[in-house]
Amino acid sequence: MSGKLSIVGLGPGDDRYLTREALDALAEAEALYGYGPYLDRIPPRAGQSRHASDNREEAERARAALGHAASGANVAIASGGDPGVFAMAASVCEEIASGPDSWRVLDVAIVPGITAMLAVAARAGAPLGHDFCALSLSDNLKPWELIERRLDAVAGAGFVIALYNPISRARPWQLGKAFARLARHLPGTTPVIFGRAVGRSDESLRVTTLSDAGETAADMATLIIVGSRETRIIAREGRAPLVYTPRIVEEVIA
Amino acid sequence: MSGKLSIVGLGPGDDRYLTREALDALAEAEALYGYGPYLDRIPPRAGQSRHASDNREEAERARAALGHAASGANVAIASGGDPGVFAMAASVCEEIASGPDSWRVLDVAIVPGITAMLAVAARAGAPLGHDFCALSLSDNLKPWELIERRLDAVAGAGFVIALYNPISRARPWQLGKAFARLARHLPGTTPVIFGRAVGRSDESLRVTTLSDAGETAADMATLIIVGSRETRIIAREGRAPLVYTPRIVEEVIA
Repeated sequence: MSGKLSIVGLGPGDDRYLTREALDALAEAEALYGYGPYLDRIPPRAGQSRHASDNREEAERARAALGHAASGANVAIASGGDPGVFAMAASVCEEIASGPDSWRVLDVAIVPGITAMLAVAARAGAPLGHDFCALSLSDNLKPWELIERRLDAVAGAGFVIALYNPISRARPWQLGKAFARLARHLPGTTPVIFGRAVGRSDESLRVTTLSDAGETAADMATLIIVGSRETRIIAREGRAPLVYTPRIVEEVIA
Repeated sequence: MSGKLSIVGLGPGDDRYLTREALDALAEAEALYGYGPYLDRIPPRAGQSRHASDNREEAERARAALGHAASGANVAIASGGDPGVFAMAASVCEEIASGPDSWRVLDVAIVPGITAMLAVAARAGAPLGHDFCALSLSDNLKPWELIERRLDAVAGAGFVIALYNPISRARPWQLGKAFARLARHLPGTTPVIFGRAVGRSDESLRVTTLSDAGETAADMATLIIVGSRETRIIAREGRAPLVYTPRIVEEVIA
């Protein structure tokens, strides 16, 4: 009996970002695992069981889904955004690495999705048009000193920076400290984008600057993009501005 | 008369990565612009004109599509992968910034897509499971010294690195030099993934190490992911290995 485990990216927001591959993987599954609100986004199907769990129970969810698949079932874990970007795919790999042999021989398929930084960037223009990085501001799983060192490295070298997990009730001061750290390397006029709940009906987008970013509201549903020295803004009458990072690095031309 | 320009991400490969939003934008357009092979992936629709151009003619394509949309038409540019990642969205913004006022007032919509690094990562496991960056190795638009400086910064700070545009006929030596540069910071055992044409019927994936990466074949259709010191490989009997980067940074635990 050979089971299968798919880890499926739903993209952020509603179903507009679902790919055909994701729809197929969800339809084929006998059992769906995931954070409750993600499962709620998937239309019910007869004969398909659902196993909702809390947002923070990633390891437990991974183990439950792996065990279920190892019993011979076709199981899918629904993941917000892309499962490979600060989401379920790494959790599942961690559990396979330390779990029973039966988990290693499973057919594991990861179905990519639109990750939040791509959706927020698309709404704003093309801020990720040049070299960029994605960094989680959560210091639950790595020390804050390492986060600061990484901010120094990428801001100093001219990367655009997407900040995942910028703030939470348990981590209230990290975001402000990150902006202060970035201000050592970047001018106060550097464009900063706050994208909240992009892809949902209550989505919002704010374009501000690094010097004003600390005053801008953010929560767990916010993805922040901090520009580089090259990032610029096109003001448009009657329309939202376009933020973009040119493909050419200006110094070379000058 | 108010036109509209959509810049639509098709994802890599065939139509498995197309989102509903992308399908809708393509279906609504009166005119489609894009690199020929991308347009060939979109089913024909009566009354919709097609304007294929060469891969290198991004600026010309952007100007033609903007001019067409400014005449009042609903125009879409088809982009491989995600339009915001080393693709058409930045080109269009650059042309809007320097173009006539009529281009600034246009309704511009960017539809995100699965970018190559997400598709390659999904095939391999979860190599982007922790902080990572995306870097173009093309020195057409930035000096090689800047690329080396960026490789130093991100490899030294522990980011996983996705290399876009790794090699071409006109840029034959850059990739080997990049691996040599990374070897200053990373052990020879660091996992390196070569994903070619992922999402197409002729896709291939190779998992090797930094010390052997220079001997591994790559071309313009290849996306390379270089792990960090934390990235590891799960060997699996009868199956491809899983490559992943844990969410926890090990030093902290030790």
